[in-house]
Amino acid sequence: MTVKIGVIGTGMIGRDHARRINQVLAGGKIVALSDVNRASAEAVKADIAPDAVVFDTGEELIASPEVEAVLVTSWGATHEQYVLAAIAAGKPCFCEKPLATTAEGAKRIVDAEVAQGKRLVQVGFMRRYDAGYVALKEAVQSHTGAPIMVHAAHRNPTVPEQYITPMAIHDTLIHEIDVFRWLLDDDYVSARVIFPRKAARSHGKLRDPQVVILETAKGVVIDVEIFVNCHYGYDIQCEVVGEDGVARLPEPMAIQMRLGAKLQNRILTDWKDRFVASYDVELDDFLKAAAQGTASGPSSWDGYVAAITSDACVVAQEKEGEAVAISLPARPALYN
Amino acid sequence: MTVKIGVIGTGMIGRDHARRINQVLAGGKIVALSDVNRASAEAVKADIAPDAVVFDTGEELIASPEVEAVLVTSWGATHEQYVLAAIAAGKPCFCEKPLATTAEGAKRIVDAEVAQGKRLVQVGFMRRYDAGYVALKEAVQSHTGAPIMVHAAHRNPTVPEQYITPMAIHDTLIHEIDVFRWLLDDDYVSARVIFPRKAARSHGKLRDPQVVILETAKGVVIDVEIFVNCHYGYDIQCEVVGEDGVARLPEPMAIQMRLGAKLQNRILTDWKDRFVASYDVELDDFLKAAAQGTASGPSSWDGYVAAITSDACVVAQEKEGEAVAISLPARPALYN
Amino acid sequence: MTVKIGVIGTGMIGRDHARRINQVLAGGKIVALSDVNRASAEAVKADIAPDAVVFDTGEELIASPEVEAVLVTSWGATHEQYVLAAIAAGKPCFCEKPLATTAEGAKRIVDAEVAQGKRLVQVGFMRRYDAGYVALKEAVQSHTGAPIMVHAAHRNPTVPEQYITPMAIHDTLIHEIDVFRWLLDDDYVSARVIFPRKAARSHGKLRDPQVVILETAKGVVIDVEIFVNCHYGYDIQCEVVGEDGVARLPEPMAIQMRLGAKLQNRILTDWKDRFVASYDVELDDFLKAAAQGTASGPSSWDGYVAAITSDACVVAQEKEGEAVAISLPARPALYN
Amino acid sequence: MTVKIGVIGTGMIGRDHARRINQVLAGGKIVALSDVNRASAEAVKADIAPDAVVFDTGEELIASPEVEAVLVTSWGATHEQYVLAAIAAGKPCFCEKPLATTAEGAKRIVDAEVAQGKRLVQVGFMRRYDAGYVALKEAVQSHTGAPIMVHAAHRNPTVPEQYITPMAIHDTLIHEIDVFRWLLDDDYVSARVIFPRKAARSHGKLRDPQVVILETAKGVVIDVEIFVNCHYGYDIQCEVVGEDGVARLPEPMAIQMRLGAKLQNRILTDWKDRFVASYDVELDDFLKAAAQGTASGPSSWDGYVAAITSDACVVAQEKEGEAVAISLPARPALYN
Repeated sequence: MTVKIGVIGTGMIGRDHARRINQVLAGGKIVALSDVNRASAEAVKADIAPDAVVFDTGEELIASPEVEAVLVTSWGATHEQYVLAAIAAGKPCFCEKPLATTAEGAKRIVDAEVAQGKRLVQVGFMRRYDAGYVALKEAVQSHTGAPIMVHAAHRNPTVPEQYITPMAIHDTLIHEIDVFRWLLDDDYVSARVIFPRKAARSHGKLRDPQVVILETAKGVVIDVEIFVNCHYGYDIQCEVVGEDGVARLPEPMAIQMRLGAKLQNRILTDWKDRFVASYDVELDDFLKAAAQGTASGPSSWDGYVAAITSDACVVAQEKEGEAVAISLPARPALYN
Repeated sequence: MTVKIGVIGTGMIGRDHARRINQVLAGGKIVALSDVNRASAEAVKADIAPDAVVFDTGEELIASPEVEAVLVTSWGATHEQYVLAAIAAGKPCFCEKPLATTAEGAKRIVDAEVAQGKRLVQVGFMRRYDAGYVALKEAVQSHTGAPIMVHAAHRNPTVPEQYITPMAIHDTLIHEIDVFRWLLDDDYVSARVIFPRKAARSHGKLRDPQVVILETAKGVVIDVEIFVNCHYGYDIQCEVVGEDGVARLPEPMAIQMRLGAKLQNRILTDWKDRFVASYDVELDDFLKAAAQGTASGPSSWDGYVAAITSDACVVAQEKEGEAVAISLPARPALYN
Repeated sequence: MTVKIGVIGTGMIGRDHARRINQVLAGGKIVALSDVNRASAEAVKADIAPDAVVFDTGEELIASPEVEAVLVTSWGATHEQYVLAAIAAGKPCFCEKPLATTAEGAKRIVDAEVAQGKRLVQVGFMRRYDAGYVALKEAVQSHTGAPIMVHAAHRNPTVPEQYITPMAIHDTLIHEIDVFRWLLDDDYVSARVIFPRKAARSHGKLRDPQVVILETAKGVVIDVEIFVNCHYGYDIQCEVVGEDGVARLPEPMAIQMRLGAKLQNRILTDWKDRFVASYDVELDDFLKAAAQGTASGPSSWDGYVAAITSDACVVAQEKEGEAVAISLPARPALYN
Repeated sequence: MTVKIGVIGTGMIGRDHARRINQVLAGGKIVALSDVNRASAEAVKADIAPDAVVFDTGEELIASPEVEAVLVTSWGATHEQYVLAAIAAGKPCFCEKPLATTAEGAKRIVDAEVAQGKRLVQVGFMRRYDAGYVALKEAVQSHTGAPIMVHAAHRNPTVPEQYITPMAIHDTLIHEIDVFRWLLDDDYVSARVIFPRKAARSHGKLRDPQVVILETAKGVVIDVEIFVNCHYGYDIQCEVVGEDGVARLPEPMAIQMRLGAKLQNRILTDWKDRFVASYDVELDDFLKAAAQGTASGPSSWDGYVAAITSDACVVAQEKEGEAVAISLPARPALYN
């Protein structure tokens, strides 16, 4: 069956997801579009989804009986309202990060979904769909023994002036926060941030790099280097140390070349190239669940926990060196 | 637009391609099925393509006005007749290897397609769609300078008793024969086969391993080790040596683990896992071209040249150590 | 010229160094031996150094006019007295770790050497002579830009019952403590220890693994995983992150094999194999300096700083999670 | 004991070996020097071996009762006469490549040594002492099962104008010829050379690259790419394919760096750096055997077989594509 999809927000990521639905993946069709900038929605209709209806508002789109499931890819501050509306309409909803701009907002979504009694929301934490992380999780479950430590790095070649210290958590570490919970099947109990000297390329309002240390309920210690002025490339590293051995996230596929006295593999420089394949997989997962009237993958709860954890990490930045406790409410049965 | 597809031959590969069209990829829909074993076609209808009509014969399927494009995934000996019928009907046709069981048969297809005046046939040489080979070709074109040598290996853990010496060419080397022509944008002028001592695990009717040496019109020398009793895994290696440097096909993605005093990455053992992603890509390419009423990718001409080259390699096996000339007719303009 | 060497302490490491001097390296000859167990010294004389005189005490050996330089490879608690005696005699002296059992003891050696006015002591921190670390230092100095972070691991397959928590510092981390000061040309200002849950294989009196975080005067943050029950092998990892890029300590040389569905390289399991080549290099360095009547390489000062730092790390173990300040006296000009 | 060594020929390699004996290794001392250019010998005396006597001729040096063993590092055309003289004098003799300039000359040495009744000659095939090849041989003997194929490459960035086609055998392949016999414990039965198109950087009198195919008595097929204008570096590759698996010669130790969007390891460009450590090991082996009045390692017989094989490979170059038989006389018992 083909799920009829409405897209709210047709900027870069919304357009790209529309393309995936209509041109790459089986199982879905874009039937409705909406954007605060109507011309943007019209352009996506013209280029990608000629059969779609353009709605004035996200709420109207959600209300349309033609729309069976919703992609929320609008400006972050509007996510909460559209997701709540989709839940209220009982329609499966894929929401890009962040689920809401505050932990409280995310909590309202969780509460609404729990009240509905079934999973309707998938949050766009695409790393869980990356073939490398999937294989890493399998390696950890099958080979390395129970995890004890994780060593990780999130490096970006450069950031613009408006990227300030807390964004290293909200925009960058957020991916590690979600994917490590999933990888380890665990929750965080504390966060700590240690700042080395500032990198020469870091601009005035940013303390870069930083080392975030997370501890989990099961006693795993995770250290994550965040370095967004690392200059040499976009590079995601992750090593899990278990009772019996160690497993490491693969480098992205690259041709090994021997050139100019160097044995060399390209390193990516643009984050958009790093997890590009996982967007297809996450949307395919969304379509399959939506065809059943539900959602799977990263949940509202995951989005809420990520928000709480991020907030704690930002406090930990301010309390440099100190462990900041992270406490979560009880997990509703819906998310077990 | 959605291309309406008929599948002739619903065995393992036909069923799998039907699944891709209906459940994985955008752009196509299975509307017709046919198999000498009608129950097989009915089963695919039940499981994958409920809207499809089951036809008694491939010819009837091809003739159906509902069918816009054809997948020929039947028994190899029947490929030629169905492909010729599809060409006669002017319908794009994806044909699994081999295009025909003889070079003459492949030539008849080429002639028919040339007479039609446009590309209608894509042959199932999926390696051209593998991300590793695609990246290797890009590396060769952009970095290593003009190719001079290729060192390659095609290793399989084991083969059944019915796999005899010429099958090392027709079933195994056939992939290298096609993909190296594409990789190098070149044609072969001679083949030579050298046999080391027979491996202990090779059964009585098989000389295994062997080293095939191909020379191209541009003067590239290619050595390919074929070793189908290599025991340790399914392993495809390829290194291109150019004027300025060397590029190597990547190993398949695998988690690096440290376990039991070994730094280790898994090696695949089943050929079906090695190029699994490329089947999706080749069919996507077929659907996109079929939507335009034509075909792209590996052509009838490529299938024909592969057949001529294979035949020469088998002669070269018999004339152990001698160079056997490979001569091709002029390439029709359609294939330039 | 050939330096005439006396060895005090002819246990495993003393015997091995005697072998190096007499059978491997040019430039030295064992002329004197001493051990609390005289039979041990006699055995080394018989097997390795037939021309050597066996002395009753280390003091007599040092006093002998035949002895031009001294190796102190006795029980750790006796190092200080022999090194002080060698300094008093004005003879170059190679002392195995630890230089002394307390920071105060090491300080007395520093003071004595400074009073003598020239370098006479080399401490057996052999990692500085490892080809991998030497190349890493060159990479850091020439390519990666100024260091900002170091990620390291020191893993051992297993330890005996008598190995208790502070030994993870004094016997294990001690190597990182010295080699990172040298690698970074920097000093430590604080240490912090974070304990993940205890590994299942860790015995009752040992908290294993642990993560030690050192900060340096230049603002470098170093995280070192110490995991002495890691089970899979003896594994030393070190990655330096600089302003422009990252450099990583090489894996020990190993044959890459494809066997049993694994691409695999051996990992060492015995620490004695890991830096075996560097012992030759450090003693060669000692012989060359001793021939000039002096010493080079790791100094008394380095041994003293390592002792102060170790003590702080042990306090940091006790104050789990807290940063413990490390303050050093002014460095005497002799060690600049 | 210390072996008293005379060096005949004090050019670059002779001087370097003298340095090894006097300044690096235990067990030997240079007591005599000789060179057609007496000033060269005097300079080595001044810089490295102050106690050595300079002789007018190699023959006088060999005759000196002070000299217990001889290094022949003179011009290649003079090797035979000095080695024969050393054998006649019953003195162990290390001879740099080539043992003689012709197979007949090498045969005369073999005959003389056999007549003496004991090993006295070690030929300077240093690769047998390279840690990588030693580990590869161990891997082949212990893990991969009996060898069936070898894939190898010998690449050099560039060569001068005087390097002509046969030198690719006599100066380049000669190392593979010897080391593969040792690695496989086997002998060659045929050689064949295939020429790809000439590389653009190859000068007029050189056909470069070439692929040499050797077959052994045990049925192993070896392909060796020789490419002396490969531009990118000095690169020695070797992969052995056995019944159970594959083993590969390690890359030289290098720091892995992440710089400028490349994951990169340096590749050497100067052949002198590639096997530098193995010169120490081969001379240590010579000293140990010479102390017993004999020789070990690569023998006169090995030098002779290398000469015969090289001659056959040069014929194979001329008979492009044809297999040229290699037949050896019976191996004297002395060399078993």
